[in-house]
Amino acid sequence: MAQIHDFQQSTQYPWPVGVPAPAGPTDGPLTPPELQLAARNHAMPLEALRRDFTAPGLHYVLTHFDIPDLDAATWHLQVGGAVERSLEISMAALRKEPGITVPVTLECAGNGRSLLAPRPVSQPWVLEAVGTANWTGVPLSHLLGKAGVLPQAVEVVFTGVDAGIQGGVPQKFARSLPIHEAMRPDVVLAYAMNDGDLPPQHGHPLRLVVPGWYGMASVKWLESIEVVTAPFAGYQQDAYRYQDSADDAGTPVSRIRVRSLMVPPGVPDFFTRHRVVPRGQVLLEGRAWSGQGAVTGVEVGVDGQWMPAQLEKSLGGYAWRKWTVPWTADPGEHVLCCRATDDTGATQPLEQNWNYQGMGNNMVHRVSVRVD
Amino acid sequence: MAQIHDFQQSTQYPWPVGVPAPAGPTDGPLTPPELQLAARNHAMPLEALRRDFTAPGLHYVLTHFDIPDLDAATWHLQVGGAVERSLEISMAALRKEPGITVPVTLECAGNGRSLLAPRPVSQPWVLEAVGTANWTGVPLSHLLGKAGVLPQAVEVVFTGVDAGIQGGVPQKFARSLPIHEAMRPDVVLAYAMNDGDLPPQHGHPLRLVVPGWYGMASVKWLESIEVVTAPFAGYQQDAYRYQDSADDAGTPVSRIRVRSLMVPPGVPDFFTRHRVVPRGQVLLEGRAWSGQGAVTGVEVGVDGQWMPAQLEKSLGGYAWRKWTVPWTADPGEHVLCCRATDDTGATQPLEQNWNYQGMGNNMVHRVSVRVD
Repeated sequence: MAQIHDFQQSTQYPWPVGVPAPAGPTDGPLTPPELQLAARNHAMPLEALRRDFTAPGLHYVLTHFDIPDLDAATWHLQVGGAVERSLEISMAALRKEPGITVPVTLECAGNGRSLLAPRPVSQPWVLEAVGTANWTGVPLSHLLGKAGVLPQAVEVVFTGVDAGIQGGVPQKFARSLPIHEAMRPDVVLAYAMNDGDLPPQHGHPLRLVVPGWYGMASVKWLESIEVVTAPFAGYQQDAYRYQDSADDAGTPVSRIRVRSLMVPPGVPDFFTRHRVVPRGQVLLEGRAWSGQGAVTGVEVGVDGQWMPAQLEKSLGGYAWRKWTVPWTADPGEHVLCCRATDDTGATQPLEQNWNYQGMGNNMVHRVSVRVD
Repeated sequence: MAQIHDFQQSTQYPWPVGVPAPAGPTDGPLTPPELQLAARNHAMPLEALRRDFTAPGLHYVLTHFDIPDLDAATWHLQVGGAVERSLEISMAALRKEPGITVPVTLECAGNGRSLLAPRPVSQPWVLEAVGTANWTGVPLSHLLGKAGVLPQAVEVVFTGVDAGIQGGVPQKFARSLPIHEAMRPDVVLAYAMNDGDLPPQHGHPLRLVVPGWYGMASVKWLESIEVVTAPFAGYQQDAYRYQDSADDAGTPVSRIRVRSLMVPPGVPDFFTRHRVVPRGQVLLEGRAWSGQGAVTGVEVGVDGQWMPAQLEKSLGGYAWRKWTVPWTADPGEHVLCCRATDDTGATQPLEQNWNYQGMGNNMVHRVSVRVD
């Protein structure tokens, strides 16, 4: 780790030119580039789980490259490829199309990565890379209908304005969806978030939102939509995979695995975030979601004893569900846990869900508390 | 470091109960509690320096404890202590008072902390804990005028709703200002940010904004204002000090030291954030600010050669000033720097501004770029 130590001694940021990053998952300490990513990309403080919808600044954000500074007045979306007629649409024209509002829980595929051992080296999420918003815009299927998708179409490729280099490959951020997912009525080209203009960091002036899928599918700063007749093999399409090793072809990351998180009860210690809870009746609460099926149950564990939580109505098919459970807090140290199950029968694992890139680690959430 | 390694191997978050945090500054690697703080508290991605004003979600946020969830409809501000008449004011009443809008650059006192060696262990900012917003609300001096400050007043204490434990001390976040600072006409009780409602994480429904001071003075989720006749000795008042060691009484942290930051030119590598810039003419740009005096100059260094930047008009007395300088980018590796000077004669140092708590490290900003 000599180079990391030297780096911290230096006054130069970022990571010095020529110093290689760890080649794969590591048991070593957090590296300066990971910290730098953590400073840029922010998670949702868990107390925001109290709110049905997550405000900009509380909602998680991950941007691979720089956040573009785009002018909605001059912006145009291109729609082309295997369609009957290509389209070029201004923001003003798009806003005149029929709109929908969809409540969606978005989660980063890398959420939980920093808890893995060994730790895949990338954006070092702890476990709060999530948020729920009302996304308003035009259904993608409506726009594709206007363009007229040709029968030989197999996927739709979405390209953002954001550009940079990843894995040595210069690129604009681009991802595809299978045509049957793209034609779902709830996939939206969104220009508003929670009734406000789309904020810069969430894709202003236009982004895709794919309910149920991890966040990488919801391409921000969208500049083009291309219908293609063969599977897309762009960098980001390959990058999101569940792999056992670097050599494993693996399987693509797509829908969000079932997960629940708890509002940490009581008050925190500033540095450790340990919680202190007054003795007596406490209503534990949190949220649960899945992109693979409806959430059917949440259990809360207190010192290893599981009990069922009360589920409230979902905010929508792909938005989180609030849960609550009363707890009588007795003095001492306690570990509180929550785990959700969805209607596919999937349940959160008690142990880490390890894979080479640290995707989809939906391990049970544990909160340590001291009751005074 | 055995406990840190064990921690990373465990599935328990946060930091296990009973494992002590480093007692002071360390040359060791980043610890899990620091990463957890970095996930909660977010910095401003440097490309946002392009914008005059910083949107919620781009503006830096530091919260010591949890972000409260407050209802403006039932909220009241208490004003008391050494005043002729105590006041209790609803949000609706406050909004009827004469309002002002003040453009202010806020910066965290701990900005630059993670670059220090040895590294003080707290919120591990890199160098982007800054932002500029238009804050709208009622001048504090107007409200204090209504209450009638008694002649023996020496300070005003501001207390937020946010509560927790720090350094073993249970507390609500509270800070004071000397009476002459509190009576400045530009110190504002803000209920709006950039023409929108104050977001939850920025102090909804009401916060203090003290132009020119580091962020700790601008108490969020404000519930009470108390005029006092002796210096306030609350935890947070003592906590923000420039100290040489744990035993050094030190000096209080107050106004923002002169600083400049650069929009990193070109495009980034996702992981390292190294920049790649096309050869030819590049307009380097950034912002400079100081809470101690007007910014009078910015120099930009290219490979150690300094040249003066062009300064644009300031957005206001305590808001950042844009600067630009043209650069002919020749192929190869380059290090770009910027340093600002204010009218007190203060200039950013080339070396780290080390102190025991990692406050006010306004060291020159360096950006490594490769020109292709």
